[in-house]
Amino acid sequence: MMEIRRALEADFEGIWEIFHEVVQGGDTYLYDPDTTKEQAYAIWMSKGLTTYVAVLDGQIVGTYILKPNHPGLGSHVANAGYMVKRGASGNGIGAALCEHSMEEARRQGFQAMQFNMVVSTNERAVALWQRMGFAIVGTLPKVFRHSRLGLVDAYVMHRFL
Amino acid sequence: MMEIRRALEADFEGIWEIFHEVVQGGDTYLYDPDTTKEQAYAIWMSKGLTTYVAVLDGQIVGTYILKPNHPGLGSHVANAGYMVKRGASGNGIGAALCEHSMEEARRQGFQAMQFNMVVSTNERAVALWQRMGFAIVGTLPKVFRHSRLGLVDAYVMHRFL
Repeated sequence: MMEIRRALEADFEGIWEIFHEVVQGGDTYLYDPDTTKEQAYAIWMSKGLTTYVAVLDGQIVGTYILKPNHPGLGSHVANAGYMVKRGASGNGIGAALCEHSMEEARRQGFQAMQFNMVVSTNERAVALWQRMGFAIVGTLPKVFRHSRLGLVDAYVMHRFL
Repeated sequence: MMEIRRALEADFEGIWEIFHEVVQGGDTYLYDPDTTKEQAYAIWMSKGLTTYVAVLDGQIVGTYILKPNHPGLGSHVANAGYMVKRGASGNGIGAALCEHSMEEARRQGFQAMQFNMVVSTNERAVALWQRMGFAIVGTLPKVFRHSRLGLVDAYVMHRFL
């Protein structure tokens, strides 16, 4: 039975394992593939956002962050980023994290959620967000420097909560 | 004859006048209308970006910032924000700033420029960016909390350099 809860300091070791393997791929996230552990901590555990983990059999198998997509006059729109442990993906963890994040976002008063950079070649993610009710509201030409494919498009995806 | 150049510390008084009057309107920028002078300095003169001013007859009549739109694998795309002094607008200052920023961006090695949040009701800005070669590549529904009109759409605009 998987539990999704707020991350504790002690969870960072498990988060870092996932963060590092995801970011190293250079095919889904903007973060530099060589992002250090210290930088990852500043990115994923910073004060301006809330961090969650998915725990299965005592192991961290996924994590997400939730925050306002913009400050000020755009702060009613949430933004989230999700990462799932390699080998654990395909078990509905991404969908469970997304569902959880939308509940949390509603509870925090957000009216919508927006992803600013869904890499177009990450077809599984695009399909998953569409199943979760997100629409492609923008196509950004060649904005992502993919580690194997070079410059590829990315989508802006959005849904109301 | 208008000069556009890198901002100096001493320019901040003039920049703040423009920043404050623009942001107070709550109709074009995400920044909180009550943004303080100290916050404005941190936003507009921060180390992570370059700040420029347009000077006409010894007076600062416009300003812009230029920076990577994203770190890491999106750092080849520039982002810029422009502000023109009230009363001075309509004299081609916005267009001159934009032209200048594209030259600077090219010089700094950027391959494209993207605006993430052009408020749809700011029709003059939308038309100006279109004249400058930018295309609307996304429409973000109700993402901007306009001071008079409530929640309005915003556009993502993009052009290659």
